[in-house]
Amino acid sequence: MLDALLATPAVLRLVDLALEEDLGRGDVTTEAVIDRDATATAQLVARESLVLAGLGLCTLVFQRVDAEVVAAESAKDGDRIAAGTAVASYRGRAASLLAAERTALNFVQRLSGTATLARAFVEAAAGSRLRIADTRKTTPGFRLLEKYAVRVGGASNHRCDLGSGLLIKDNHVAVAGGVRQAVEKARGRAPHGLRIEVEVDSLAELEEALAAGADVILLDNFSPADLDRAVARTGPLPQRPLLEVSGGVTLRRIPELARAGVDIVSVGALTHSARAVDLSLDIGINGPGQ
Amino acid sequence: MLDALLATPAVLRLVDLALEEDLGRGDVTTEAVIDRDATATAQLVARESLVLAGLGLCTLVFQRVDAEVVAAESAKDGDRIAAGTAVASYRGRAASLLAAERTALNFVQRLSGTATLARAFVEAAAGSRLRIADTRKTTPGFRLLEKYAVRVGGASNHRCDLGSGLLIKDNHVAVAGGVRQAVEKARGRAPHGLRIEVEVDSLAELEEALAAGADVILLDNFSPADLDRAVARTGPLPQRPLLEVSGGVTLRRIPELARAGVDIVSVGALTHSARAVDLSLDIGINGPGQ
Amino acid sequence: MLDALLATPAVLRLVDLALEEDLGRGDVTTEAVIDRDATATAQLVARESLVLAGLGLCTLVFQRVDAEVVAAESAKDGDRIAAGTAVASYRGRAASLLAAERTALNFVQRLSGTATLARAFVEAAAGSRLRIADTRKTTPGFRLLEKYAVRVGGASNHRCDLGSGLLIKDNHVAVAGGVRQAVEKARGRAPHGLRIEVEVDSLAELEEALAAGADVILLDNFSPADLDRAVARTGPLPQRPLLEVSGGVTLRRIPELARAGVDIVSVGALTHSARAVDLSLDIGINGPGQ
Amino acid sequence: MLDALLATPAVLRLVDLALEEDLGRGDVTTEAVIDRDATATAQLVARESLVLAGLGLCTLVFQRVDAEVVAAESAKDGDRIAAGTAVASYRGRAASLLAAERTALNFVQRLSGTATLARAFVEAAAGSRLRIADTRKTTPGFRLLEKYAVRVGGASNHRCDLGSGLLIKDNHVAVAGGVRQAVEKARGRAPHGLRIEVEVDSLAELEEALAAGADVILLDNFSPADLDRAVARTGPLPQRPLLEVSGGVTLRRIPELARAGVDIVSVGALTHSARAVDLSLDIGINGPGQ
Amino acid sequence: MLDALLATPAVLRLVDLALEEDLGRGDVTTEAVIDRDATATAQLVARESLVLAGLGLCTLVFQRVDAEVVAAESAKDGDRIAAGTAVASYRGRAASLLAAERTALNFVQRLSGTATLARAFVEAAAGSRLRIADTRKTTPGFRLLEKYAVRVGGASNHRCDLGSGLLIKDNHVAVAGGVRQAVEKARGRAPHGLRIEVEVDSLAELEEALAAGADVILLDNFSPADLDRAVARTGPLPQRPLLEVSGGVTLRRIPELARAGVDIVSVGALTHSARAVDLSLDIGINGPGQ
Amino acid sequence: MLDALLATPAVLRLVDLALEEDLGRGDVTTEAVIDRDATATAQLVARESLVLAGLGLCTLVFQRVDAEVVAAESAKDGDRIAAGTAVASYRGRAASLLAAERTALNFVQRLSGTATLARAFVEAAAGSRLRIADTRKTTPGFRLLEKYAVRVGGASNHRCDLGSGLLIKDNHVAVAGGVRQAVEKARGRAPHGLRIEVEVDSLAELEEALAAGADVILLDNFSPADLDRAVARTGPLPQRPLLEVSGGVTLRRIPELARAGVDIVSVGALTHSARAVDLSLDIGINGPGQ
Repeated sequence: MLDALLATPAVLRLVDLALEEDLGRGDVTTEAVIDRDATATAQLVARESLVLAGLGLCTLVFQRVDAEVVAAESAKDGDRIAAGTAVASYRGRAASLLAAERTALNFVQRLSGTATLARAFVEAAAGSRLRIADTRKTTPGFRLLEKYAVRVGGASNHRCDLGSGLLIKDNHVAVAGGVRQAVEKARGRAPHGLRIEVEVDSLAELEEALAAGADVILLDNFSPADLDRAVARTGPLPQRPLLEVSGGVTLRRIPELARAGVDIVSVGALTHSARAVDLSLDIGINGPGQ
Repeated sequence: MLDALLATPAVLRLVDLALEEDLGRGDVTTEAVIDRDATATAQLVARESLVLAGLGLCTLVFQRVDAEVVAAESAKDGDRIAAGTAVASYRGRAASLLAAERTALNFVQRLSGTATLARAFVEAAAGSRLRIADTRKTTPGFRLLEKYAVRVGGASNHRCDLGSGLLIKDNHVAVAGGVRQAVEKARGRAPHGLRIEVEVDSLAELEEALAAGADVILLDNFSPADLDRAVARTGPLPQRPLLEVSGGVTLRRIPELARAGVDIVSVGALTHSARAVDLSLDIGINGPGQ
Repeated sequence: MLDALLATPAVLRLVDLALEEDLGRGDVTTEAVIDRDATATAQLVARESLVLAGLGLCTLVFQRVDAEVVAAESAKDGDRIAAGTAVASYRGRAASLLAAERTALNFVQRLSGTATLARAFVEAAAGSRLRIADTRKTTPGFRLLEKYAVRVGGASNHRCDLGSGLLIKDNHVAVAGGVRQAVEKARGRAPHGLRIEVEVDSLAELEEALAAGADVILLDNFSPADLDRAVARTGPLPQRPLLEVSGGVTLRRIPELARAGVDIVSVGALTHSARAVDLSLDIGINGPGQ
Repeated sequence: MLDALLATPAVLRLVDLALEEDLGRGDVTTEAVIDRDATATAQLVARESLVLAGLGLCTLVFQRVDAEVVAAESAKDGDRIAAGTAVASYRGRAASLLAAERTALNFVQRLSGTATLARAFVEAAAGSRLRIADTRKTTPGFRLLEKYAVRVGGASNHRCDLGSGLLIKDNHVAVAGGVRQAVEKARGRAPHGLRIEVEVDSLAELEEALAAGADVILLDNFSPADLDRAVARTGPLPQRPLLEVSGGVTLRRIPELARAGVDIVSVGALTHSARAVDLSLDIGINGPGQ
Repeated sequence: MLDALLATPAVLRLVDLALEEDLGRGDVTTEAVIDRDATATAQLVARESLVLAGLGLCTLVFQRVDAEVVAAESAKDGDRIAAGTAVASYRGRAASLLAAERTALNFVQRLSGTATLARAFVEAAAGSRLRIADTRKTTPGFRLLEKYAVRVGGASNHRCDLGSGLLIKDNHVAVAGGVRQAVEKARGRAPHGLRIEVEVDSLAELEEALAAGADVILLDNFSPADLDRAVARTGPLPQRPLLEVSGGVTLRRIPELARAGVDIVSVGALTHSARAVDLSLDIGINGPGQ
Repeated sequence: MLDALLATPAVLRLVDLALEEDLGRGDVTTEAVIDRDATATAQLVARESLVLAGLGLCTLVFQRVDAEVVAAESAKDGDRIAAGTAVASYRGRAASLLAAERTALNFVQRLSGTATLARAFVEAAAGSRLRIADTRKTTPGFRLLEKYAVRVGGASNHRCDLGSGLLIKDNHVAVAGGVRQAVEKARGRAPHGLRIEVEVDSLAELEEALAAGADVILLDNFSPADLDRAVARTGPLPQRPLLEVSGGVTLRRIPELARAGVDIVSVGALTHSARAVDLSLDIGINGPGQ
């Protein structure tokens, strides 16, 4: 996604919430101690090896606080950055840089954390046809941003919301009276641009899903052995439906899943439990006269 | 903080961003498969041992989606919950419960994750006078919520924003021309209800801070030996300023810091890198006739 | 979609824009002329035959102006209503009913207009397998509401936004270097839950789309003869991709398209040019003493 | 109204709702198929004869999506545009133009539809003193925009909201106890800058309104014969009150009303049932290197 | 205006801004000191003689902080309240009452201040036909509320905004080329429900305004002698236009203006310089067990 | 505070509320009378001696209405301005200047009113160590702006909200069971960066506060004699806590308080009852051709 398309009204609202919560009462320290004419230059530096994501958003935060901050980005989202490397510099009023610092870092550290973790999963599946996909287990308010970070890391997006993907889960099956009935209802009523995906918990349900003509089948918490059986049963693409795996998948299991021949594995941890990676701002005060 | 005071306009805006991003285009699966008269009951169950935080917010999400959802909470924020325990049940239209499920979980899993991690730090300092404090390294938009989760976990809050605490950092010192000058400027200009805290990087700066009469001194990245020297130098409370420690502090270092006799340790990881804990919703469909 | 799920944060913002623009400076006439204790009952009556849509939203408008207005709905969305039939009554302060009247009507007249037009298209295709679908040519701010009205009328939704459907148009094809290349790029990069739809302008492009394995093919502005050739060429379902038709389709052409054997016809006019149908409010003042 | 004054906070909120509903989950097709460095030029072209309205808003949409889009407008609001004429061109990133296209068109097609219809009514009254006026039957959220389009078409605005015009309707009369009592109450209490307009349903009520000294009299659903009698009864301007006509007025009746000598006719259809006129975007991809 | 109509979306946004700015970071004192189960009762008491305005808004603030606060109002807007009189009591959680107290008071003290001042002006004109009117010199964001307080005090509203009244000022006259030309332009273009008011600075301009047929004439900064001449010149109502006076009018000048026979005097001070009147909250803690 | 930091999201929302309430329905007079190509230059002139505050906000209002307005500021916030002095000029479309005028003035008149009053208090305390401080009795929505105006006037800010300062009042004391208990609870639970301030009503409570080790003691409504006793009792700084005085303090009492030797006096009137000072806009129309 282009940065221009990432600054949606909802993302700007989130940025405003973040600025308001940190800057909404002013910055008493800076106001007490820093001369209002002082200018400074700040380097954004990676403190560990990471995959960068959200650099444009970081810049947007600085410039939303003070439109006169001048930015120079020297890396781009998706780049693998070595520890100690500067990825951008910001120049402007010292007070503005100090005020925006924490909010800007909180965004870029978090998104780069997700991109870095996604990259690790993707690399663990390298050489196979296994796609690493995210889930809807995102930080509330960050859905668009975190799904972008997932792509930046090289992984794929699952449906972005409840309206843009059709995924029949166990509860839907229970109400509909069975996998087949649920899939048929969905085929009749859902928008025609959406594939019909159904979650199955057993090989028996897999049979039902195949019979019903599901487009994608989500194998939930299948044992390795059952996974092999499921793949064997469904046969080769493109005749068969896509096979997706989910359920507490760790980085360690990726090679095994890649070998098993499934198409997609969805990993909630990419967005719900990625730690923030370490980026910091080195600020050098230029003095009052620019 | 009482739940009534947690539902601030800004928190409600964040909840709305979250609902909009997941539900803003409807729920195609539920609409295709679930009868609109079907009702259900959902149990919110802990899947691992955790400290609960944000249960009221979870309930708020369900009721904001559908005001007719009936909630019954059986635990409260701050409770240690064993794996397998139900903490609340929600009853209402099946479609509403299915639609709100993911957003509600995304909030309570994240906040409980922070509370659980905070509790672990607090327990590691048990028996000492060491306070575990958070930082401003919070998820953008979640400052109030995550600081609440920190308190729920038993830890303390550092300043909530740039306007409500005075913390003179190295850059402020550099501009002011020294620790003493910075502290004096701050004393003359800052609101009288705020203590003056100054960050020092060495024992020499510590001397300056003591001479300047700082109220709180933040020892940044001090070695264990220097930490001991700093504590010895400043003498007993209440005559001396409070001593705070920061800089990449892990759970493992807490007992050592507790023994060292410092007053506060601030830990960014409580909020920037807590993983989501596992809570899920068990939904039982009641049938169309209630 | 259940009404509970229709009142999204974005829809409520639209309702607030509408209330603000009509009521934001008060109601000078009512304040000058109507006693503040006067109460009234208002009947919402169809003035022509119509398919009702948005009755719940109409009620929501009244109750958002004054939470004490009591509503009694006697019809439901999707019902065919004869001219002269009352579909709801509202009881409460006369000033509140008069103030909310216009905004409430503006919503329900517009949505019922779309539902009524959609129903006419659906009835014209009755007995065939042709689906009537909408487009993204909706009133700005009304996407979710108008797509709901389309479903209420019995027609189907095309993708709800740019993020929830993959539709490769001529410009995409031009950039990608051809239909085949575009489809292949899309297959490699798009979320796996989305079908790949491609627009073709000629029988030659249709061949390319078939060869590339597109899931849905949009036949844009095909002549009737070419349409027949296209259907004949692609063969029977479920082996072939879905065929969609678009381009200035009027109600009169529906029977012909239904006979042609295509699967879907998308009609922009359902949402961009439906006229408001006539519903009005008959208000009876009860007097000051209730 | 100048364009600068049209971009009010409320209009920008509506634009944001529109962008969010179409772009809020990104643009999966463009992201999958279009190179992120590709640039393009788009011509906005009238596909039928129309009166242009909202061109500035169309431009605003493109530039709100991407501030670097360069616009060149070659026509202005109020111009009669022949089919096939380009009215503006937009140059910038291909992804931005494709993403903004639909929303921008949805606005300008709708507003131009209203302006075009208004112009037709105005031309039907040409040579007479009859003013064509709008009503409050506007699209919710579009009041300011649609009233602007009405003026662009050459027609007049009735009151913009309940707070900026005093119009006593049948219900107000019923409560007040008669036309005379209602008018007198209004004169005593309403802001002194507002004329007092009263709706009458019969020649008898007209007498009352004249006796009460109403400034404007709205003749609702009068037969042609009664209309002539009403005009004859009230005599010449400026001594008499203004006479307004309303009630299901179609374009065909305008010449008759113009001849009858009434001052104003208000037409709800200008805003509640104008069809969108056909404008489209011809996009030419420039290639990645600008 | 009924309270239901005062809680517009814009007013609720202002209330939210106010709550957010005081409560958005929680209430550290109450959280540290007050038991979370403690309940209390608070009396809202007038500390000086005042005209009450905004009581319903005060109640709304308490209940927006905590929906379980129970309110009992014992006076109503417009009442003259003696010092020492309680006008409402609020019962609920002590923490909620303490948290909402300041914001609630800030609203009701300010609005009652304006109502009290307006009442003083109205009483100074008692027995005459002089109307006291407000201006657009209101507190930003408070237009609707302060104009309501003016009415509560017994005075009248001038136009509520730039769109709902036509007032030709000196600058408009200068551009139009004279009073006559300006009035004629306005008559041809403005909405027909608005009277045409023109500001004049001299008796010569008054003649022009009369000749042009202005509906209302604003005599700006006329000397008492010129005022008398102006009234004499225009003759008796209803043939003549309304005469309004403005320009630094103090309470002391009202009797003189009343005697002079002008119709309206507009007073900016009602809203831009009314002091807050003294109302306070007496809180009694009930104890933790309700 | 730098202007860049004053334009927070919340302040911009307030500006938008203000623009919407005055311009949201357009400007009928200007549209009817002023040529849309006319340009003008406006001088912002002080009509009385004042301390300027909010000039940047005034400029922001003009440029938010029309980004092409060119501003030239010739004074800065905090300057004492003599009557008749121009402090800024604005050049651009006449319609834009006329439309923004009232809102811009309403902000700068109000904020300068507070700064002017604050300066008077500060000058009354000149030569002493007495600090003049504000309170939370601010105009709802204006907290950040009015506290800025207070600083511009040379006075100090008390806590900005309930979350950034710890002030134990009588009700807190009552619930806690005494001054000592309340202070101790607060010391154990409050953020360590906040001083603990407690309000006392008598010399006896003062003793308790001293014994409990409060950092700041607020002497509420102490008689002059008791004030002297309180100062004498607490002894010299820096060993003693800070002493603050509050309770209906007028400008006349400041010299007495300055002599008494207290540290801070907080004055609600700075923000709740400052009158608007007189600034106006002199607009000269340049003609249509710039």
